[in-house]
Amino acid sequence: MSGWGIDHLPYGVFSRAGEPPRVGVRYEDNVLDLASALHDEVFATGSLNAFLARGRTAWHDTRRLIRNKLATDFGVVEPHLIPLAQVVLHLPVEVADYVDFYASLDHATNMGRIFRPNAEPLLPNWRHLPVGYHGRAGTVVVSGTPVRRPSGQLGAGVFGPSAKLDIEAELGYVVGVPSPLGSPAGPFEEHVFGVTLLNDWSARDIQGWEAQPLGPFLGKSFATSVSPWVTPLEALPRVPGRPQDPEPLGYLRRTADWGLDISVEVRLNGEVVSRPPYRSMYWTPDQMLAHLTVNGAALRTGDLFASGTISGPAREERGSFMELSWNGTEPLKLADGSVRTFLEDGDTVTISATAGGITLGEVSGSVG
Amino acid sequence: MSGWGIDHLPYGVFSRAGEPPRVGVRYEDNVLDLASALHDEVFATGSLNAFLARGRTAWHDTRRLIRNKLATDFGVVEPHLIPLAQVVLHLPVEVADYVDFYASLDHATNMGRIFRPNAEPLLPNWRHLPVGYHGRAGTVVVSGTPVRRPSGQLGAGVFGPSAKLDIEAELGYVVGVPSPLGSPAGPFEEHVFGVTLLNDWSARDIQGWEAQPLGPFLGKSFATSVSPWVTPLEALPRVPGRPQDPEPLGYLRRTADWGLDISVEVRLNGEVVSRPPYRSMYWTPDQMLAHLTVNGAALRTGDLFASGTISGPAREERGSFMELSWNGTEPLKLADGSVRTFLEDGDTVTISATAGGITLGEVSGSVG
Repeated sequence: MSGWGIDHLPYGVFSRAGEPPRVGVRYEDNVLDLASALHDEVFATGSLNAFLARGRTAWHDTRRLIRNKLATDFGVVEPHLIPLAQVVLHLPVEVADYVDFYASLDHATNMGRIFRPNAEPLLPNWRHLPVGYHGRAGTVVVSGTPVRRPSGQLGAGVFGPSAKLDIEAELGYVVGVPSPLGSPAGPFEEHVFGVTLLNDWSARDIQGWEAQPLGPFLGKSFATSVSPWVTPLEALPRVPGRPQDPEPLGYLRRTADWGLDISVEVRLNGEVVSRPPYRSMYWTPDQMLAHLTVNGAALRTGDLFASGTISGPAREERGSFMELSWNGTEPLKLADGSVRTFLEDGDTVTISATAGGITLGEVSGSVG
Repeated sequence: MSGWGIDHLPYGVFSRAGEPPRVGVRYEDNVLDLASALHDEVFATGSLNAFLARGRTAWHDTRRLIRNKLATDFGVVEPHLIPLAQVVLHLPVEVADYVDFYASLDHATNMGRIFRPNAEPLLPNWRHLPVGYHGRAGTVVVSGTPVRRPSGQLGAGVFGPSAKLDIEAELGYVVGVPSPLGSPAGPFEEHVFGVTLLNDWSARDIQGWEAQPLGPFLGKSFATSVSPWVTPLEALPRVPGRPQDPEPLGYLRRTADWGLDISVEVRLNGEVVSRPPYRSMYWTPDQMLAHLTVNGAALRTGDLFASGTISGPAREERGSFMELSWNGTEPLKLADGSVRTFLEDGDTVTISATAGGITLGEVSGSVG
């Protein structure tokens, strides 16, 4: 099973040589050209946003329509299938605001142990709310975009290229339906369309020096990569969220199972270096959305919020090199006998994932 | 002198009843309808963005053209002047990314003294780089938009409306010309079109509980208000920046005088409570822009970056109630004999400013 069959059908934006980008759905190794197959102009644009804004009923009906056509009318849709090899894939969503959470208990615990080895690893607020911050929407790029090693301040009076270039393997949530300023958003599934794998590239030395007291800034804002494919929530296998202690406040209480059973894989130059399990995340995405808007912050179509680094409890389940190499003190041994702490020029990192029988679109980038 | 004469000419977006919004320039108590006066479709849209993208030469030439017409051809442009009383003003810019800096030495020192009374008030990085973070672009609103007191977590297990609702009197810088991903931006004046007064509404109790380790989030993201008028850089009186010690790293070195001599005034329900002097800011905006992009972060048309709270050295020059009331411990005495720490429901805060002979567009909001 490829993971790209009729039970998946993720959305993306593609173009053929000499043609403007438009919206398609991936089916096996093809892109279904939706504007022509469905005769709907909402797909004849360079981002998913207009379709996302239509809302949950339209998302569901469109998915059902495409499935039915592929299952029972294949001869009719076949002329609208374009082999992947003939297309270029683009950033699927025009990103409005980008928020990054910190929702993995194991990741937050690891970071606490690394930076505050003699103290309680979790800060006092961590179990009470999904900690998060705003990132730079304008530097969200599609998988395959080269990532330039950032230069910046590494300490007092020290300027140079980051020596601690890292990744964060994450899941991103794409908002379709806006909510007005002044009120919390409605139910998660009414606003959020789907998910994408995300790599929140991080320069740990820049971040370490700059981030007090207002949080990460240039250590993150040079690039955030996402998969070209957005998988609809409807396609994902759901499980109960990880138990929480203490019980969260009322606005954060779970009313449905929004744990997601996704197995993630991080490859460095082709070699698997980590297998983070998404189902071990502490805060579920419905809680992230409820928190993000409880103060009355508006949602816009195209808002993107990410889970934060996905790390499981085991060493080989850590979703960043900061954790895998314990801030460089325990270098990772690679198959060729070399060791690695952070990323080197020329490295390629690819994050892929499966969820039940589907394969999420991978996110890849090379350091140049 | 009104401050709205031929030496100012700020840009905004206006509409008349039943008509779509379009771009205008304020001249005295009128709006000059640019699309009709200049026969240029770039002004027949609901934001300044398309005009901003044209770049510095176009900004300069357009300004000169408008000045010439007003000075020598008044009879020709007069039919295109619409009294302010007949228009509604809108958010002037479609905001791409919003960044907030922390550029006032006096503000950062006050905050340090309040929160770490027994330690050095400035953190080690503060004099080495303009500390900043990303805010929520989607909740930037135009002056006059009511501000709803946010609810949120105020501590472990405590949820409710913020009891420490505050303002931050700031100057915002509007980016016109983009810069590509992977390289630092060029000179400040090639990218930045102009300035707007900005109120970064802040819920201090929400912020205090949530902000470790990733910075402010819901304590700020409920509303950020800007003036409807964007004053071109060309109209502003410039002065040398405040001396800096230590000398900043090369990429932050000043090559022109981008200190701005702007006198700000904060009024609470009509009563002046503070007069922050912008010329006392430590980091100048050219340094903020150089820092923001030194890691290769791209700029987009519509990016907005703000100075952070403007505070001067004197008590009556502080740009937030956190400082004016020293976190509520030294209540402010008002003219009617009452005292005030943070904002109460029904309060109206108005930030206004003059710069030489011009009057910046004020930013006002009422807590509802």
